[in-house]
Amino acid sequence: MAEIKLHGFWYSPFTLRVVWTLNLKGIPYENIEEDRFNKSPQLLEYNPVHKKTPVLVHDGKPICESMIIAEYIDEIWPHNSLLPTDPYDRAQARFWVKYIDDMISAMSAHLRSRSGEEREKAKENIWERLKVIEDQCLDDQKKFYGGNTIDMVDIALGSFVKFIEIQEDMFQVKILQSERFPRLHLWFNNFKDVPAVKENIPAQEKLVAFYKPLIEKILASA
Amino acid sequence: MAEIKLHGFWYSPFTLRVVWTLNLKGIPYENIEEDRFNKSPQLLEYNPVHKKTPVLVHDGKPICESMIIAEYIDEIWPHNSLLPTDPYDRAQARFWVKYIDDMISAMSAHLRSRSGEEREKAKENIWERLKVIEDQCLDDQKKFYGGNTIDMVDIALGSFVKFIEIQEDMFQVKILQSERFPRLHLWFNNFKDVPAVKENIPAQEKLVAFYKPLIEKILASA
Repeated sequence: MAEIKLHGFWYSPFTLRVVWTLNLKGIPYENIEEDRFNKSPQLLEYNPVHKKTPVLVHDGKPICESMIIAEYIDEIWPHNSLLPTDPYDRAQARFWVKYIDDMISAMSAHLRSRSGEEREKAKENIWERLKVIEDQCLDDQKKFYGGNTIDMVDIALGSFVKFIEIQEDMFQVKILQSERFPRLHLWFNNFKDVPAVKENIPAQEKLVAFYKPLIEKILASA
Repeated sequence: MAEIKLHGFWYSPFTLRVVWTLNLKGIPYENIEEDRFNKSPQLLEYNPVHKKTPVLVHDGKPICESMIIAEYIDEIWPHNSLLPTDPYDRAQARFWVKYIDDMISAMSAHLRSRSGEEREKAKENIWERLKVIEDQCLDDQKKFYGGNTIDMVDIALGSFVKFIEIQEDMFQVKILQSERFPRLHLWFNNFKDVPAVKENIPAQEKLVAFYKPLIEKILASA
């Protein structure tokens, strides 16, 4: 029996990606909740480059970076495959995973906006990118990115959209408006309904309560 | 016979990655040199999201993003494999490819520095990251990242280091000092000596002559 440990933060969108992947595959693992103010010596040893979570430790060997971990899990446990088998379709899926990851800087600009004007501009930027997802990545005819089951693109996007949902509640803004993004809205509802996600997503109130003072501190020091 | 076209810029480090990959695999292709001031309608159609090169078109189907193209090529033409077969080693290689790609923002900060002080700071940042490559990615016992032949990590790193070499000549600075980075220095010499690279790397003078006025324009408008 393989020994699987996950070092992460319960509130981290990146840790969530790995949690969902492990649960989708039905892989039992030991969860090691890290303290961001006092990271474990193991974590620092396992990820000497970034010293960040999540880190998956498989029989003593560490793997870092959420989507690289997801791909590793998919290669080791290929059932319920998370990438298409056709190389062209795989390349398309990888394109979207990268696109979504590149959106994270836009998201952090929104979080760090110092004025209403700056926040408005950052929001416009996120909207533009979400529009690309809405129009070019998602498909009316499909429940998820690739079809009827979730894959790597959905996992990457899901953690991102969850984080938007948190910000909506924190700032009392509507980023993910259903009128503007009907596909994305529908897709996210489908996504949150997948048991591996539904059973492994922290409660919204708990996330908002965690992030709100953090963000307020960032804003106060800006 | 497959029809392969590559839309790119002769001077682009990202296009070079694909050129090297195709040549390593011995795949004949048609090179389509794009004009950055007047991109072809095909390019805009093939990459509607980013409207950027490189784009590989395989039997009419476009693939975007240099390292995703490299992985696609490796999956379609698996001889001279560019990724290890072991999933753990693959994850490590993907980690370094991502690390190198994430260094590009540090590089562009160096290019856009407005003062000597800013450039110095940006250089320190690049140095720090190169030190991680020197100490944790490269290995004295191996000619290339994975052993005796180049792979995905070498291709990603090679285009990056080539771009550093151009900046050294442009700004008369020494970023990649052999005393500071002996492994990287040796590795880059080995890399440039691989026929698929050697025969497909624009001349340094030509690259410097191309980039110098561009960068001077950026600096003047800063």
